[in-house]
Formats: sequence, structure tokens, C-alpha cells
Amino acid sequence: MPKVERHFFVCTNARPAEGKPSCGARGSAALLTALQEGVGAHPELWGKVAVTPAGCLGPCFEGPTIVVYPEAVWYTGVTPADVPEIVESHMRAGVPVARLVPVWEE
Amino acid sequence: MPKVERHFFVCTNARPAEGKPSCGARGSAALLTALQEGVGAHPELWGKVAVTPAGCLGPCFEGPTIVVYPEAVWYTGVTPADVPEIVESHMRAGVPVARLVPVWEE
Repeated sequence: MPKVERHFFVCTNARPAEGKPSCGARGSAALLTALQEGVGAHPELWGKVAVTPAGCLGPCFEGPTIVVYPEAVWYTGVTPADVPEIVESHMRAGVPVARLVPVWEE
Repeated sequence: MPKVERHFFVCTNARPAEGKPSCGARGSAALLTALQEGVGAHPELWGKVAVTPAGCLGPCFEGPTIVVYPEAVWYTGVTPADVPEIVESHMRAGVPVARLVPVWEE
């Protein structure tokens, strides 16, 4: 993991279905898998882009949530359908996907 | 969690005791708690320093492992005994604890 250039952390925190919402209950496991498969499909990203599950990142009512470092870009409400754009734009071209950035981070 | 200035990710990945080593098997849960308590004891850090559990970060044979962003500082072999120094030096003064940075990151 040394020399990672860009590190995606995907909240996988899960809570029971009837209480406070959680990224885990909103499908973040599938999101995590899709992101990891996205990296896997692009050898030029191997060793440069890391995708790691994380505990609660905070904005539970807006999840699934991702934070990307070192640029400190936050994404909320992300689904597997968003992953191809994240891979092409953010991972491969270095341009965050603006439509997934919550208002409090713009 | 927006506007976090410094984000500590602590590997809490756990594996069975007899296989490949893991940060979880090496006590990272206590490390995570100590770091969170360290932030809790210093109100000036609240909202500025985040401490989040994470999945496998890679250097399993050298754990427990921490990565800190946005500066991308890696720590390995960290124990709760190291936490007061991390809190004072890295969290409060912004100076990473050099002795905990693995050789591959220096």
C-alpha cells in the first residue's frame, strides 16, 4: 500500500433496518465491490488507486458515503451505477464527479 | 464529517490467529479506542481530527497499521502506548511521529 496516489474509503457501517440509516443498509457492500472491480479492470490503476472499506464517516442520512484522499473529496448517495463514471473521471482522469459531491462540500 | 482537517484510518481487519497476521489480531481495536479517546480529551480537535476504523490497509506483517490523510503518513506497529505521543505531536502540533513511520515510507 505504500505510494498510493489516491485512496477511496467506502463506509460499510451497518445498522438495523428500522433505526438510523446506514451506508451498509443502503447497499454500500455492492458499491465497494463495484469500485474494487473497477480498479481491477484497469491495470494502470493497480498500486496507485486503493479502495478500502471504512467505518462510519458521518453523513449517515445521505449515504452511501465515500471520502477520497489526499484531495478530501466527499461523495454521498453513491450507487454501483455511478461507479463507471467514478472510475473514468476520478480514478483515471483525476477529475472528481461533481454531481456526487454533497452541497456542504461544494 | 465535512471540513475534517486530518483523518486517521486505523486498520481493524481481523484474521484467525494461526494464519496471516492481521491488525485486528494484534490489538488494533484497543488502538482505535485509545485514539478516539485522545481526540475526545481535547475539545480543540473535535470536528478537525477524525479517527475511523478501516479494512485491510496492506502491510499486514507490520501492523497495527494507520494511514493519515491528507498528508498520507503511514504508521505501522502502533500500540496504545504510542497514542499520547500521536495526539500531542501529530494531532495537536501537526508533526508526524517519525519513529512510527515504516522505512518504506521515509
